[in-house]
Amino acid sequence: MKKITAYLLAGAALLMAVPASAQFAKAEDAIKYRKNALFVMSQNFGRVAGMAAGRIPFDAKVAVESAEIAEFMADLPWAGFGPGTDKGDTRAKPEIWTEKAKFDDYAKKLQGEMSKLTTATKTGNLDTIKTAVNATGGACKACHDNFRAK
Amino acid sequence: MKKITAYLLAGAALLMAVPASAQFAKAEDAIKYRKNALFVMSQNFGRVAGMAAGRIPFDAKVAVESAEIAEFMADLPWAGFGPGTDKGDTRAKPEIWTEKAKFDDYAKKLQGEMSKLTTATKTGNLDTIKTAVNATGGACKACHDNFRAK
Repeated sequence: MKKITAYLLAGAALLMAVPASAQFAKAEDAIKYRKNALFVMSQNFGRVAGMAAGRIPFDAKVAVESAEIAEFMADLPWAGFGPGTDKGDTRAKPEIWTEKAKFDDYAKKLQGEMSKLTTATKTGNLDTIKTAVNATGGACKACHDNFRAK
Repeated sequence: MKKITAYLLAGAALLMAVPASAQFAKAEDAIKYRKNALFVMSQNFGRVAGMAAGRIPFDAKVAVESAEIAEFMADLPWAGFGPGTDKGDTRAKPEIWTEKAKFDDYAKKLQGEMSKLTTATKTGNLDTIKTAVNATGGACKACHDNFRAK
């Protein structure tokens, strides 16, 4: 029990002295969080896209599961783009913070397309899925083109 | 209990859905995937744990949201522990693959505790949350002690 408490305190120590409004203990945690969430999303989206492109054998059940995970993940990265997280190990462009409304619109657009992708996978129709994959990939690309450095 | 059982079955189904080799293009992607999923989970769990430990002000709404994300994330890392993913940038011990049933039991235990943690946050009672945080932290620690190298 003592060991468990010590373990929890060690984990909680990362969050010490943080205001309630702050989601992350350090800017680098926020940056890592958004990158990691985006990677988990992209792996799941990429699996569906791979099926749509014929690179991966189509498995309807896996397509649905992957799309559902990607859809969930599409909600998460944005919490990691708070004030003060523009510097560090990141390709995020300063415009994310100076054109925040536009950035938020891209995020919402992606979320909408991801939701439609899940719906598309549930039809089991590969042509329907392809159309949704293209729209979703377009939403990824539009934001990267505007807000991610090369 | 029924909910937990259904939850565990859903988790088990996810693990059996496809051969692990089909899930990721490269072993390093699988390793990165599980690490990133665990980080996203730990950031959300850590927020609730921080509230339980009094290190960050208790915000009932944020606690529920964080627990729900952590619970979802607790389903994901295991897909990244397929055959051939034991070597690389990882602290995963070989016993994960030689004692797979035991490892899977730890994963299921964590998923069950994360589910209970979400339920606990919804009570809004900090003592109830503390108890669930301790149980969840214990599940993390038990697996790390057995299957993660120092």
